[in-house]
Amino acid sequence: MRHKIRVVQYGVGPIGAAMVRLMLEKPEIAIVGAIDIDPAKLGKDLGQVVGAGRDLGIPVSDDATNVLRAGAHVVVHTTSSYLTQVADQLITCLRSQVHVISTCEELAYPFRKHPDLSQQLDHVAREHHVALLGTGVNPGFAMDKLVLTLATACQQVSKVRVRRIVDASRRRLPLQKKVGAGMTVEEFQAQVQAGVIKHHGLPESTGMIADSLGLSVERIEETILPVVAETPVRSDYIEVPAGKVRGVRQVAVGLDLNGEEHVRLELAMFLGAPDPVDSVEISGVPDLNLAIPGGIHGDLATAAIAVNCVPAMLETRPGLRTSRDIPMCYLPGVTQMRQTQIA
Amino acid sequence: MRHKIRVVQYGVGPIGAAMVRLMLEKPEIAIVGAIDIDPAKLGKDLGQVVGAGRDLGIPVSDDATNVLRAGAHVVVHTTSSYLTQVADQLITCLRSQVHVISTCEELAYPFRKHPDLSQQLDHVAREHHVALLGTGVNPGFAMDKLVLTLATACQQVSKVRVRRIVDASRRRLPLQKKVGAGMTVEEFQAQVQAGVIKHHGLPESTGMIADSLGLSVERIEETILPVVAETPVRSDYIEVPAGKVRGVRQVAVGLDLNGEEHVRLELAMFLGAPDPVDSVEISGVPDLNLAIPGGIHGDLATAAIAVNCVPAMLETRPGLRTSRDIPMCYLPGVTQMRQTQIA
Repeated sequence: MRHKIRVVQYGVGPIGAAMVRLMLEKPEIAIVGAIDIDPAKLGKDLGQVVGAGRDLGIPVSDDATNVLRAGAHVVVHTTSSYLTQVADQLITCLRSQVHVISTCEELAYPFRKHPDLSQQLDHVAREHHVALLGTGVNPGFAMDKLVLTLATACQQVSKVRVRRIVDASRRRLPLQKKVGAGMTVEEFQAQVQAGVIKHHGLPESTGMIADSLGLSVERIEETILPVVAETPVRSDYIEVPAGKVRGVRQVAVGLDLNGEEHVRLELAMFLGAPDPVDSVEISGVPDLNLAIPGGIHGDLATAAIAVNCVPAMLETRPGLRTSRDIPMCYLPGVTQMRQTQIA
Repeated sequence: MRHKIRVVQYGVGPIGAAMVRLMLEKPEIAIVGAIDIDPAKLGKDLGQVVGAGRDLGIPVSDDATNVLRAGAHVVVHTTSSYLTQVADQLITCLRSQVHVISTCEELAYPFRKHPDLSQQLDHVAREHHVALLGTGVNPGFAMDKLVLTLATACQQVSKVRVRRIVDASRRRLPLQKKVGAGMTVEEFQAQVQAGVIKHHGLPESTGMIADSLGLSVERIEETILPVVAETPVRSDYIEVPAGKVRGVRQVAVGLDLNGEEHVRLELAMFLGAPDPVDSVEISGVPDLNLAIPGGIHGDLATAAIAVNCVPAMLETRPGLRTSRDIPMCYLPGVTQMRQTQIA
């Protein structure tokens, strides 16, 4: 008899819902619970909430401790970008002796920004013999894991440059709004000041690259600039006249003590961006460049990556782990090999 | 005080020598022994044999058991492509409770071709609480690990196509000869029949991809064809007139029971190959393509990959493992985190 990996979904927003729908297609996975605090979802069947087209017999609950008592192996957690906001949620899961995969961006590589909290989470996870992993497409894959994987083929690495160019007009309306499309430059800058226009994760990816490859990065600087339309552009949802904002260009650089740059990450998301791509340039022995023409689709990939990491959690050492520490490929065989762990 | 990872080099041919030279540059690694059976190398200092420019105080020895008594953590093993030829060497290392990284191509994913021997090696490794890993640039990275890493961003995968195009005229003379450059078509075909012209590893990569992504591959077929010069081509070493062989095109396909193709690997190595590249095409949700223009340099990368996996061996579960099972990135931090293991 073959056992399934029992998963609880923690957070049933648009991304969490996409993960549930994807997990329903994976024969290795059984969804056994769902947690959310949204009153509009509480008590409803998870299948209805995520648009699965059928009931799953799983009511959405806000009582995490009780849901986790159902004997899950792994929690997939998608609630917030800020580690301080989710730390208590994560600790509740870890204390229930359940592995956790979270898309919290600050958890993707938390050691530099939150050293004390990282240590605490690592300690709690080890104490309860489970692993905690922050991952997703970005941070967690496109601008860090992919870099480190390519760098395996290099004898030496001195500098890394990563670009992610997204044509926002091909994405959901919320993303188009999130990048400031249609705003005046002044409105855009006010939203940047307010912390609203900001992709979370570039410093985390920069830190992961630098620390993993032994690059001397003492300081990480981040800038967020508008991409202004020189001629009118439009998407299905938004029209941007010349002079207004098409989207955002966000750059993080990792500098050594002398101000020399060793890591540069550029994330540009704007309407009508030509030649969308994910690209990596490594300066080293040898130099190596990689390109994914068209780029990795953010929404599809974030759900894919978190779900594809589920089996690997059973193989992972207890403690706080990151994308760099795990093999990152979907292994149907794992559940056959490790029956003892999930029996 | 910081401890180093103690490594023994097993096999000091051209690739093994390149690995030794690379390891000498890595502060985390201390080379503590060298094994080879070549009478011309026995008793000589390893530094002299590998052209390190200095003596290392390590005589090359053919007494593996004795060298392994020096208390190594990891053996880097580079002796033969055939698993049956190296199994005893590997078992000697495992019984000495030393982790092993080997470039033996058939070890990269041995479960389909050598199921019994795979089980035996796995058993011996577990029994002695160490890990055994077969890896290298190909198999082990360019045509398998890179594919599986990219596939992490896909929700579903139905078909994979990988191409590795190498301009052999930019490589060492031995490689140019190995691909048949300058031969008549008849000479080439005789060498293929004799098993001399053959890259090892495509079936291993095909199996790793299929089994890891759950693709239904029941049968793997391999073909080796000459690339014939239509006009004269030349390298620094070899002139090929029109009508003679420029090199080789080797293809492996993974087929299901109905003969439908789910995996296709194409390895072309010939003089003057235009647009050398490593590329991956995944058909799935979403489709994803990746290209490394110029391609990954085989010799540099094979040494890099084996050496970059050294720290990860201390983190890896005991048993027979493959590239798909390990994170594959050089982690200077590992040796700090895992002091207890290498103290």
